[in-house]
Amino acid sequence: MRIYLDHNATSPLRAEARSAMIAAMDLVGNPSSVHAEGRAAKSLMERARADVAEALGAEDADIVFTSGATEAAALACAGRDLAGAAVEHDAVGAWVRDALAVDAQGAVTVDDPGTSVLQLANSETGVLQQVPAGIAVCDMTQVFGKLPLDFMATGARMALVSAHKLGGPKGIGALVLRRGQEVPAQIKGGGQEMGRRSGTENIIGMVGFAAAAKAAMRDVNDGHWDRVAQLRNILENGLEAASRKTIFVGKDANDLESPKAVARLPNTSCFVTPGWKGETQVMQMDLAGFAVSAGSACSSGKVRASRVLTAMGFSPADAASAVRVSLGLETTENDVLRFIEAWTDKLSKHEARAA
Amino acid sequence: MRIYLDHNATSPLRAEARSAMIAAMDLVGNPSSVHAEGRAAKSLMERARADVAEALGAEDADIVFTSGATEAAALACAGRDLAGAAVEHDAVGAWVRDALAVDAQGAVTVDDPGTSVLQLANSETGVLQQVPAGIAVCDMTQVFGKLPLDFMATGARMALVSAHKLGGPKGIGALVLRRGQEVPAQIKGGGQEMGRRSGTENIIGMVGFAAAAKAAMRDVNDGHWDRVAQLRNILENGLEAASRKTIFVGKDANDLESPKAVARLPNTSCFVTPGWKGETQVMQMDLAGFAVSAGSACSSGKVRASRVLTAMGFSPADAASAVRVSLGLETTENDVLRFIEAWTDKLSKHEARAA
Repeated sequence: MRIYLDHNATSPLRAEARSAMIAAMDLVGNPSSVHAEGRAAKSLMERARADVAEALGAEDADIVFTSGATEAAALACAGRDLAGAAVEHDAVGAWVRDALAVDAQGAVTVDDPGTSVLQLANSETGVLQQVPAGIAVCDMTQVFGKLPLDFMATGARMALVSAHKLGGPKGIGALVLRRGQEVPAQIKGGGQEMGRRSGTENIIGMVGFAAAAKAAMRDVNDGHWDRVAQLRNILENGLEAASRKTIFVGKDANDLESPKAVARLPNTSCFVTPGWKGETQVMQMDLAGFAVSAGSACSSGKVRASRVLTAMGFSPADAASAVRVSLGLETTENDVLRFIEAWTDKLSKHEARAA
Repeated sequence: MRIYLDHNATSPLRAEARSAMIAAMDLVGNPSSVHAEGRAAKSLMERARADVAEALGAEDADIVFTSGATEAAALACAGRDLAGAAVEHDAVGAWVRDALAVDAQGAVTVDDPGTSVLQLANSETGVLQQVPAGIAVCDMTQVFGKLPLDFMATGARMALVSAHKLGGPKGIGALVLRRGQEVPAQIKGGGQEMGRRSGTENIIGMVGFAAAAKAAMRDVNDGHWDRVAQLRNILENGLEAASRKTIFVGKDANDLESPKAVARLPNTSCFVTPGWKGETQVMQMDLAGFAVSAGSACSSGKVRASRVLTAMGFSPADAASAVRVSLGLETTENDVLRFIEAWTDKLSKHEARAA
């Protein structure tokens, strides 16, 4: 029985999403068609749009469904010469000037919100940002479904979100646009999504996204992530007890001025064990039955030194010695204890070899 | 019990696609992750890619999965100054110079294949094109799954295909690239799809596409569309008997030089009844229980005079009086006979009002 601890890469499909998607499979129509079958498809799609908007606190904004947060990032950022920090996800980093300072805790200083992008949480470290009002683009992918979220209250002009990070299917996400904010279409043709993004709509995906988002926000409101945060703390305390030299990235961020500040995602632990490559740890833990990662899931399958960690001041060698564990709602205390045990065992073997 | 005759807009999900998609819902991993869950997801995705390639006769080409043919068209055509004809789908037409001549039968003359786009079949009329070897981009969306298709044999540099036209889910398609042909990425980030199209992959969609494509080509090879062509002919003969003034677009294209030439898609009939608006017919037939369309499914829900028909020499008034009926494999003779009866009844009432 394997233990999946890589929820920031992707989360299991929620039961609510699964059943909504299966129900949507029976629908025949193209939402652009004027006949009854088309109107039924359109109605289902607009219900999904409203549900996603409500979950996001974006009822007064426009939801443009895309194939994921990566496409939403391109739609929001391409050709706009926005400033960003080196801790942004590659999907955003591909389009922005690396111009914003990052401190040792991972906090980004934004000079001019209206021409800048800033993530709400980092996928590798879980570090949360204080996003200034009026930010041009905010990547909310990792926060949506894990913490309370109110798009309008953030003051962001645009936001990126993704379904598969919160228990929806892969391949569907959205760009959220404050009213009055426009983007030039990159995919043209039939004029779907109010002309902002053409192409016959991924209705099954949209319906799964909406069902997952509703369920996710219910779980957020019911406080289920508090339990996950406790498990994450058990994990970090257990690993720390086994290895004094291991550094927990962003953990000190909990000691901010405001005692109420939630400084990291509740589920994420990123830890550096100098001299023990993250890539090696991921493979050893995989063989031991645990799915974790070294940095963001990377399409090449190769693991590079984390750009996020070097931006925070880690040496390339230390940045290449990081592992990310990201828990989910189904994670149990036993899962965490077994991880600690297995990791401690591997660490002893690593140290024996290194000695 | 409604009768769905709008398969060129979108087709019902095939049972094979449905069950493959439901099975894929249990898979947790992100295909970019290196652990066992990630590798399992990647393996499923690559199996889907190989199946789509095989169904297309494109084993020696690259399949770049996209969110649909519309995105594939943008990826293939944007920024390339390609020549096209006015009969191309809007998703292609948005990117190309309207520079190629169209004759009264809908046939396009290509001057320079290497800098031109040409559809294999028109979605509104079903008219098939003789695509010259070396065409830069070929829209195969309407042919894939209805007729035998061999991408390599066409000599096209690139092709666009879509899942939902052949019984796969909406929101997934592909750009097919002959080896050596490259496209600049429009969606950047994680480097998925060999750097050509980033973003966590829509695995459930890919698996549904592959299962539908396999099943569709089996049906093609088993000759099931011959029966559909017979039903289409029964339909046209029935309507013609009721209305001498109705024109069947592209029907004469069957009398080409080669007696073996398949000049139209087997399932498509586009007919113009001068003086009776297509939009009105679609709404009347919808109320009578039939889903048909006037031209391509159009996101606005409004029906314009078909650009395809005006390009073939129809007057704007006649082009606005067209209806497209597109049959599917589940269409029965009784469906067709009921359509003829209902349409004839509506025609009589229209003529009584007009008299």
